Amino acid sequence: MAESPITITLTTDFGNSDQYVSAMKAVILGINPEVRLVDVSHEIPPQDIMAAAWVLKNSAFLYPAGTIHLVVVDPGVGTDRNPVAVRIGEQLFVGPDNGLFSLIADRDPYDAVLLDDHTYWRSECSSTFHGRDIFAPVAAHLSRGLPLHDLGSSLQELITYHWALPIADEEGIQGWVVHIDHYGNLITNISEDMVRKMAGTHAVKVYAGSTIIKKLSETFADVAEGEASAVIGSSGMLEIIVNKGNASRFLSVEKGAPVTVLVQK
Amino acid sequence: MAESPITITLTTDFGNSDQYVSAMKAVILGINPEVRLVDVSHEIPPQDIMAAAWVLKNSAFLYPAGTIHLVVVDPGVGTDRNPVAVRIGEQLFVGPDNGLFSLIADRDPYDAVLLDDHTYWRSECSSTFHGRDIFAPVAAHLSRGLPLHDLGSSLQELITYHWALPIADEEGIQGWVVHIDHYGNLITNISEDMVRKMAGTHAVKVYAGSTIIKKLSETFADVAEGEASAVIGSSGMLEIIVNKGNASRFLSVEKGAPVTVLVQK
Amino acid sequence: MAESPITITLTTDFGNSDQYVSAMKAVILGINPEVRLVDVSHEIPPQDIMAAAWVLKNSAFLYPAGTIHLVVVDPGVGTDRNPVAVRIGEQLFVGPDNGLFSLIADRDPYDAVLLDDHTYWRSECSSTFHGRDIFAPVAAHLSRGLPLHDLGSSLQELITYHWALPIADEEGIQGWVVHIDHYGNLITNISEDMVRKMAGTHAVKVYAGSTIIKKLSETFADVAEGEASAVIGSSGMLEIIVNKGNASRFLSVEKGAPVTVLVQK
Repeated sequence: MAESPITITLTTDFGNSDQYVSAMKAVILGINPEVRLVDVSHEIPPQDIMAAAWVLKNSAFLYPAGTIHLVVVDPGVGTDRNPVAVRIGEQLFVGPDNGLFSLIADRDPYDAVLLDDHTYWRSECSSTFHGRDIFAPVAAHLSRGLPLHDLGSSLQELITYHWALPIADEEGIQGWVVHIDHYGNLITNISEDMVRKMAGTHAVKVYAGSTIIKKLSETFADVAEGEASAVIGSSGMLEIIVNKGNASRFLSVEKGAPVTVLVQK
Repeated sequence: MAESPITITLTTDFGNSDQYVSAMKAVILGINPEVRLVDVSHEIPPQDIMAAAWVLKNSAFLYPAGTIHLVVVDPGVGTDRNPVAVRIGEQLFVGPDNGLFSLIADRDPYDAVLLDDHTYWRSECSSTFHGRDIFAPVAAHLSRGLPLHDLGSSLQELITYHWALPIADEEGIQGWVVHIDHYGNLITNISEDMVRKMAGTHAVKVYAGSTIIKKLSETFADVAEGEASAVIGSSGMLEIIVNKGNASRFLSVEKGAPVTVLVQK
Repeated sequence: MAESPITITLTTDFGNSDQYVSAMKAVILGINPEVRLVDVSHEIPPQDIMAAAWVLKNSAFLYPAGTIHLVVVDPGVGTDRNPVAVRIGEQLFVGPDNGLFSLIADRDPYDAVLLDDHTYWRSECSSTFHGRDIFAPVAAHLSRGLPLHDLGSSLQELITYHWALPIADEEGIQGWVVHIDHYGNLITNISEDMVRKMAGTHAVKVYAGSTIIKKLSETFADVAEGEASAVIGSSGMLEIIVNKGNASRFLSVEKGAPVTVLVQK
């Protein structure tokens, strides 16, 4: 492991048509020309903190120990929101403390640092682009082995938001669509565990939009093309999909829409 | 060459707004932290196997020998379609056997392996994301030098689809638009060789949509701005383009539309 | 520095759904398997030379000395426009001489070479894809240490376009929107220096579209959500933004629209 390059991943809402991503990569390479850069996403919907949180939750912990995740969805840049660096498990994260770490902060005890020591910032710091001026250089210094607590003072608590939890009793679960992916798949806040606990070995019905789905399927292709089905997706959550189609469009269901699971007895 | 990093290229229809691409990259780096990752495209139209096949045909064989191409456009994930790894010439390919290799399988004799040995899969394998759970780890193990046939049993035949061939006689060729690129250029299944064979040194006329183009041009800028022309494109096929414009939009021509080449005698 | 990999950055209008980006990466790696590839943008609007010039201006000079920037927005490919390689400061650039270097050519004295020696081109050169056939191999050879002037004959002057300069007197500045970014922020050709010189310590008013903004703000979040404000952005230019909104859409302002700054006395 000693000779393998350290990885910095980049997750932003910057899009790919401007100089913003490039400016961060340039600053990083200027500080650590040995580091590996991995694009995670620059297509997080503008200012959608929870969409970035979802991406982190479902991929960050698959990286090798010591990977540094630079995460910049930062609508409050230049205000009094805190710039932070955080260790969670064996992964490091750098970005604004605005809820980005909501879905991973309770995974393990975290060790958070307020980036209040300007030593590791760019010498000129704008008030509108901390990705380039604070977060990128800090991530680069971490990738060179700088100890986390050299970056500033300890921070007791990160800001975290919580998705509303589903409501459940022995007959059913009422949850919501919390993410819609590139295919239009509707990902809910109803976990595999909740469904199993509620239904046991009984079959279930799933209500989403104007559709009633009569069972859980194993795969996307378990129903005819253009038909809706419900599966436990790769993130461990109940998903409503349309085989070779876009469920969000076909069922006219948007983020936040209710999804109900009823046990068939 | 021995010290140069092995490259794994990534070609998917995952889009860039979710965690899917990142999850594959993370799994690969967990297995081989030395490998080089190269994004080919994550914007293959959802489930468009032949669009991915086209991209492979026109770029994969330009890579250095030993490059591994991870290709995941996988509408049948979790069904009985086969996961495979294939050597074609000096390139290696990993992905579902669903037609993705249609346009390159006849380039050289191929050596295909069914990925039926779970040793090199992720320990937990979902039924909806084999990119993360089968194809990424298999590609990573190949990049560490694992012999192809250690991955599973031999497979005699890959599934291949064929684009309809143009119809040609001594007076003309009737073909189709098989790909429309980012610029709106209309790429046909009519090759340079077919045109030369049919027309020899005679001039040709090209009919596409409501347009008649009276000659082959050498470059995109051979006609006035906003006008259509026909060129032999960088893939060796006849293309209909509009100088500084979008031919698909300007001429209202979609994938599958007929294109006719007539010799001018 | 000696062991750190040389970086080639890629800036194109190729989009991410075709083989074009991959073909360039493949050709580069075939010539220099040690090089680092960094994607800057492949989402430059088709044929928008000045949008690419803007991205270069605002990120290229942040890279480590010796970085090679491969820039291919090339509507005139195959015509008599010149293929060039240029050293500006400590950065190297390779691409068509069609105005791409307009916003950086006056930054330092430049050293430009016409790529008229075919030795470093691909052996087969198409007339429609010089990115793959000329610029990528030339960039790769530079990354291996080939001296700039081995690539061809010296070129005295690059083609440069100039954005119209703002008109200013002691009471006000009349400028234009020269770039609209991914967030819809309106970036003008009015620099921080111009505003300070004109207004000194006086407050200013900014007119854009149907809006009057009564002061300069420090950050994007200085006004209520959905309200417009004016800031000096990260590129050092006056920007009109809407807090958590899309200023271009909200204010119906497009590229080229006038923006006026008046001093409040």
